[in-house]
Amino acid sequence: MQTLFTDEYFMKEAFKEAQKAADIDEVPVGAVIVSNKRIIARAHNMTEKLQDVTAHAEMLAITAASNFLGAKYLDGCTIYVTLEPCPMCVTALYHAHIEKMVWATDDEKMGFMRFGVQMLHPATSYEKGLMAEKSAQMLKKFFKDKRK
Amino acid sequence: MQTLFTDEYFMKEAFKEAQKAADIDEVPVGAVIVSNKRIIARAHNMTEKLQDVTAHAEMLAITAASNFLGAKYLDGCTIYVTLEPCPMCVTALYHAHIEKMVWATDDEKMGFMRFGVQMLHPATSYEKGLMAEKSAQMLKKFFKDKRK
Repeated sequence: MQTLFTDEYFMKEAFKEAQKAADIDEVPVGAVIVSNKRIIARAHNMTEKLQDVTAHAEMLAITAASNFLGAKYLDGCTIYVTLEPCPMCVTALYHAHIEKMVWATDDEKMGFMRFGVQMLHPATSYEKGLMAEKSAQMLKKFFKDKRK
Repeated sequence: MQTLFTDEYFMKEAFKEAQKAADIDEVPVGAVIVSNKRIIARAHNMTEKLQDVTAHAEMLAITAASNFLGAKYLDGCTIYVTLEPCPMCVTALYHAHIEKMVWATDDEKMGFMRFGVQMLHPATSYEKGLMAEKSAQMLKKFFKDKRK
Protein backbone atom coordinates (compact mmCIF):
# COMPACT_ATOMS: atom_id res chain seq x y z
CA MET A 1 0.00 0.00 0.00
CA GLN A 2 1.24 3.43 -0.88
CA THR A 3 1.12 6.20 1.65
CA LEU A 4 -0.06 9.60 0.50
CA PHE A 5 1.79 11.58 3.11
CA THR A 6 5.36 11.09 2.06
CA ASP A 7 8.23 13.53 2.55
CA GLU A 8 7.80 14.42 -1.11
CA TYR A 9 4.13 15.25 -0.59
CA PHE A 10 4.97 17.71 2.17
CA MET A 11 7.93 19.18 0.31
CA LYS A 12 5.63 19.85 -2.65
CA GLU A 13 3.40 21.80 -0.25
CA ALA A 14 6.46 23.81 0.82
CA PHE A 15 7.08 24.52 -2.88
CA LYS A 16 3.55 25.87 -3.24
CA GLU A 17 4.49 28.35 -0.53
CA ALA A 18 7.76 29.21 -2.27
CA GLN A 19 5.78 29.92 -5.46
CA LYS A 20 3.51 32.29 -3.51
CA ALA A 21 6.65 34.17 -2.46
CA ALA A 22 7.90 34.34 -6.06
CA ASP A 23 4.49 35.61 -7.18
CA ILE A 24 4.84 38.66 -4.94
CA ASP A 25 8.50 39.23 -5.82
CA GLU A 26 9.95 37.75 -2.63
CA VAL A 27 12.94 35.42 -2.65
CA PRO A 28 11.12 32.11 -3.23
CA VAL A 29 11.41 30.10 -0.04
CA GLY A 30 8.51 28.17 1.46
CA ALA A 31 8.00 25.99 4.52
CA VAL A 32 5.39 23.76 6.10
CA ILE A 33 5.36 22.25 9.58
CA VAL A 34 3.81 18.83 10.01
CA SER A 35 2.53 17.10 13.12
CA ASN A 36 1.11 13.58 12.92
CA LYS A 37 1.04 13.69 9.12
CA ARG A 38 -0.98 16.90 9.23
CA ILE A 39 0.18 20.33 8.08
CA ILE A 40 -0.28 22.66 11.05
CA ALA A 41 1.50 25.69 9.61
CA ARG A 42 2.58 26.98 6.23
CA ALA A 43 4.43 30.14 5.31
CA HIS A 44 6.62 31.78 2.74
CA ASN A 45 9.29 34.41 2.88
CA MET A 46 7.82 37.88 3.51
CA THR A 47 10.88 40.01 4.24
CA GLU A 48 10.18 42.53 1.49
CA LYS A 49 6.46 42.81 1.97
CA LEU A 50 6.81 43.24 5.73
CA GLN A 51 10.16 45.07 5.49
CA ASP A 52 11.31 42.84 8.30
CA VAL A 53 14.41 40.66 8.12
CA THR A 54 12.97 38.27 10.69
CA ALA A 55 10.11 37.28 8.34
CA HIS A 56 11.75 34.21 6.82
CA ALA A 57 9.40 31.37 5.89
CA GLU A 58 10.62 29.17 8.75
CA MET A 59 10.16 31.89 11.40
CA LEU A 60 6.62 32.63 10.28
CA ALA A 61 5.85 28.91 10.18
CA ILE A 62 7.22 28.37 13.70
CA THR A 63 5.08 31.19 15.10
CA ALA A 64 2.02 29.85 13.27
CA ALA A 65 2.64 26.29 14.46
CA SER A 66 3.02 27.44 18.06
CA ASN A 67 -0.20 29.42 17.75
CA PHE A 68 -1.93 26.33 16.41
CA LEU A 69 -0.63 24.06 19.16
CA GLY A 70 -0.85 26.65 21.91
CA ALA A 71 2.65 25.62 22.86
CA LYS A 72 6.12 26.97 22.24
CA TYR A 73 7.69 23.55 21.79
CA LEU A 74 7.17 21.74 18.51
CA ASP A 75 8.01 18.28 19.83
CA GLY A 76 7.24 15.59 17.31
CA CYS A 77 6.98 18.07 14.43
CA THR A 78 8.84 18.09 11.12
CA ILE A 79 9.59 21.18 9.07
CA TYR A 80 9.86 20.94 5.28
CA VAL A 81 11.61 23.92 3.73
CA THR A 82 12.75 24.55 0.17
CA LEU A 83 16.13 26.06 1.16
CA GLU A 84 18.67 25.22 3.86
CA PRO A 85 17.77 27.36 6.88
CA CYS A 86 20.02 30.25 7.91
CA PRO A 87 21.44 30.34 11.46
CA MET A 88 18.54 32.54 12.62
CA CYS A 89 15.94 30.00 11.54
CA VAL A 90 17.87 26.94 12.62
CA THR A 91 18.34 28.39 16.10
CA ALA A 92 14.64 29.17 16.32
CA LEU A 93 14.05 25.51 15.39
CA TYR A 94 16.53 24.58 18.12
CA HIS A 95 14.62 26.63 20.67
CA ALA A 96 11.40 24.94 19.49
CA HIS A 97 12.89 21.42 19.86
CA ILE A 98 11.78 20.53 16.36
CA GLU A 99 12.07 16.78 15.81
CA LYS A 100 13.09 16.76 12.16
CA MET A 101 14.12 19.14 9.41
CA VAL A 102 13.93 18.34 5.71
CA TRP A 103 15.28 20.87 3.25
CA ALA A 104 15.62 20.88 -0.52
CA THR A 105 18.65 22.78 -1.76
CA ASP A 106 21.72 23.81 0.21
CA ASP A 107 22.52 27.48 0.78
CA GLU A 108 26.28 27.63 0.72
CA LYS A 109 26.42 31.36 1.32
CA MET A 110 23.86 31.89 4.09
CA GLY A 111 22.97 28.37 5.33
CA PHE A 112 23.64 27.30 8.91
CA MET A 113 25.83 24.37 7.88
CA ARG A 114 28.76 26.78 7.58
CA PHE A 115 28.75 26.62 11.37
CA GLY A 116 28.23 22.87 11.54
CA VAL A 117 25.59 20.47 12.80
CA GLN A 118 26.33 21.54 16.37
CA MET A 119 23.85 24.35 15.68
CA LEU A 120 21.10 21.73 15.85
CA HIS A 121 19.32 20.62 19.01
CA PRO A 122 20.55 17.15 20.02
CA ALA A 123 16.97 15.87 19.58
CA THR A 124 16.72 17.15 15.99
CA SER A 125 17.47 15.05 12.92
CA TYR A 126 17.68 16.28 9.36
CA GLU A 127 17.55 15.22 5.73
CA LYS A 128 18.55 17.31 2.77
CA GLY A 129 18.47 17.20 -0.99
CA LEU A 130 14.81 16.30 -1.52
CA MET A 131 13.73 18.11 -4.72
CA ALA A 132 16.92 20.14 -4.48
CA GLU A 133 17.18 20.81 -8.20
CA LYS A 134 13.68 22.26 -8.39
CA SER A 135 14.45 24.68 -5.58
CA ALA A 136 17.83 25.66 -7.00
CA GLN A 137 16.23 26.40 -10.37
CA MET A 138 13.41 28.41 -8.80
CA LEU A 139 15.93 30.57 -6.93
CA LYS A 140 18.18 30.91 -9.96
CA LYS A 141 15.26 32.04 -12.13
CA PHE A 142 14.19 34.55 -9.48
CA PHE A 143 17.59 36.20 -9.26
CA LYS A 144 18.07 36.10 -13.03
CA ASP A 145 14.72 37.86 -13.57
CA LYS A 146 15.69 40.39 -10.89
CA ARG A 147 18.77 41.40 -12.84
CA LYS A 148 16.82 42.08 -16.03
CA MET B 1 30.47 69.03 28.82
CA GLN B 2 28.83 65.77 29.73
CA THR B 3 26.63 63.96 27.29
CA LEU B 4 23.37 62.51 28.50
CA PHE B 5 23.13 59.84 25.86
CA THR B 6 25.94 57.53 26.83
CA ASP B 7 26.10 53.79 26.28
CA GLU B 8 25.25 53.43 29.97
CA TYR B 9 22.13 55.55 29.57
CA PHE B 10 20.82 53.31 26.82
CA MET B 11 21.82 50.12 28.60
CA LYS B 12 19.84 51.30 31.62
CA GLU B 13 16.85 51.61 29.32
CA ALA B 14 17.43 48.03 28.20
CA PHE B 15 17.44 47.04 31.87
CA LYS B 16 14.05 48.69 32.34
CA GLU B 17 12.80 46.34 29.64
CA ALA B 18 14.46 43.35 31.31
CA GLN B 19 12.68 44.27 34.54
CA LYS B 20 9.35 44.34 32.70
CA ALA B 21 10.08 40.77 31.58
CA ALA B 22 10.92 39.70 35.15
CA ASP B 23 7.68 41.29 36.38
CA ILE B 24 5.64 38.97 34.16
CA ASP B 25 7.75 35.91 34.93
CA GLU B 26 9.71 35.92 31.70
CA VAL B 27 13.47 35.32 31.60
CA PRO B 28 14.66 38.90 32.19
CA VAL B 29 16.24 40.10 28.97
CA GLY B 30 15.63 43.56 27.53
CA ALA B 31 16.78 45.44 24.46
CA VAL B 32 16.58 48.90 22.93
CA ILE B 33 17.56 50.00 19.43
CA VAL B 34 19.00 53.47 19.01
CA SER B 35 19.30 55.63 15.91
CA ASN B 36 20.92 59.06 16.10
CA LYS B 37 20.89 58.99 19.91
CA ARG B 38 17.16 58.28 19.91
CA ILE B 39 15.48 55.09 21.06
CA ILE B 40 13.39 53.86 18.14
CA ALA B 41 12.42 50.46 19.55
CA ARG B 42 12.31 48.76 22.94
CA ALA B 43 11.29 45.23 23.82
CA HIS B 44 11.65 42.47 26.35
CA ASN B 45 11.55 38.74 26.18
CA MET B 46 8.00 37.46 25.63
CA THR B 47 8.50 33.77 24.84
CA GLU B 48 6.26 32.52 27.63
CA LYS B 49 3.49 35.07 27.26
CA LEU B 50 3.33 34.55 23.50
CA GLN B 51 4.28 30.86 23.67
CA ASP B 52 6.63 31.57 20.80
CA VAL B 53 10.33 30.79 20.88
CA THR B 54 11.02 33.51 18.32
CA ALA B 55 9.87 36.25 20.72
CA HIS B 56 13.28 37.13 22.15
CA ALA B 57 13.78 40.77 23.13
CA GLU B 58 16.12 41.42 20.21
CA MET B 59 13.75 39.93 17.61
CA LEU B 60 10.82 41.99 18.82
CA ALA B 61 13.03 45.09 18.90
CA ILE B 62 14.25 44.50 15.33
CA THR B 63 10.69 44.15 14.03
CA ALA B 64 9.64 47.28 15.94
CA ALA B 65 12.63 49.29 14.69
CA SER B 66 11.95 48.26 11.10
CA ASN B 67 8.33 49.25 11.51
CA PHE B 68 9.44 52.63 12.87
CA LEU B 69 11.90 53.25 10.06
CA GLY B 70 9.78 51.69 7.33
CA ALA B 71 12.90 49.83 6.28
CA LYS B 72 14.28 46.38 6.81
CA TYR B 73 17.87 47.55 7.19
CA LEU B 74 18.92 49.14 10.46
CA ASP B 75 21.98 50.89 9.08
CA GLY B 76 23.51 53.28 11.59
CA CYS B 77 21.60 51.74 14.49
CA THR B 78 22.95 50.31 17.75
CA ILE B 79 21.24 47.62 19.82
CA TYR B 80 21.73 47.54 23.58
CA VAL B 81 20.78 44.22 25.12
CA THR B 82 21.20 42.91 28.66
CA LEU B 83 22.37 39.42 27.60
CA GLU B 84 24.65 38.18 24.83
CA PRO B 85 22.39 37.40 21.86
CA CYS B 86 21.78 33.80 20.80
CA PRO B 87 22.58 32.74 17.21
CA MET B 88 18.96 33.38 16.16
CA CYS B 89 19.08 37.00 17.29
CA VAL B 90 22.59 37.70 16.11
CA THR B 91 21.74 36.39 12.64
CA ALA B 92 18.65 38.58 12.54
CA LEU B 93 20.95 41.49 13.43
CA TYR B 94 23.24 40.34 10.63
CA HIS B 95 20.38 40.37 8.15
CA ALA B 96 19.45 43.87 9.40
CA HIS B 97 23.01 45.19 8.94
CA ILE B 98 23.02 46.56 12.49
CA GLU B 99 25.96 48.91 12.97
CA LYS B 100 26.79 48.13 16.58
CA MET B 101 25.83 45.71 19.33
CA VAL B 102 26.40 46.36 23.03
CA TRP B 103 25.54 43.61 25.47
CA ALA B 104 25.87 43.32 29.23
CA THR B 105 26.59 39.79 30.41
CA ASP B 106 27.87 36.86 28.38
CA ASP B 107 25.72 33.78 27.82
CA GLU B 108 28.18 30.94 27.78
CA LYS B 109 25.53 28.28 27.21
CA MET B 110 23.32 29.83 24.54
CA GLY B 111 25.24 32.89 23.28
CA PHE B 112 26.37 33.19 19.67
CA MET B 113 30.04 33.57 20.59
CA ARG B 114 30.30 29.78 20.84
CA PHE B 115 30.28 29.93 17.04
CA GLY B 116 32.68 32.87 16.84
CA VAL B 117 32.59 36.46 15.63
CA GLN B 118 32.20 35.24 12.06
CA MET B 119 28.49 35.13 12.85
CA LEU B 120 28.50 38.94 12.73
CA HIS B 121 28.01 41.03 9.61
CA PRO B 122 31.36 42.51 8.53
CA ALA B 123 29.88 45.99 9.05
CA THR B 124 28.85 45.27 12.67
CA SER B 125 31.01 46.12 15.67
CA TYR B 126 30.35 45.07 19.25
CA GLU B 127 31.14 45.84 22.87
CA LYS B 128 30.36 43.66 25.83
CA GLY B 129 30.49 43.74 29.59
CA LEU B 130 28.67 47.03 30.21
CA MET B 131 26.70 46.54 33.47
CA ALA B 132 27.40 42.83 33.15
CA GLU B 133 27.21 42.15 36.87
CA LYS B 134 23.76 43.71 37.18
CA SER B 135 22.43 41.53 34.38
CA ALA B 136 24.06 38.37 35.72
CA GLN B 137 22.52 38.99 39.14
CA MET B 138 19.10 39.69 37.68
CA LEU B 139 19.17 36.40 35.76
CA LYS B 140 20.55 34.48 38.74
CA LYS B 141 17.79 35.82 40.98
CA PHE B 142 15.16 34.93 38.38
CA PHE B 143 16.25 31.31 38.08
CA LYS B 144 16.77 30.99 41.84
CA ASP B 145 13.22 32.22 42.50
CA LYS B 146 11.95 29.80 39.82
CA ARG B 147 13.38 26.84 41.70
CA LYS B 148 11.61 27.79 44.93
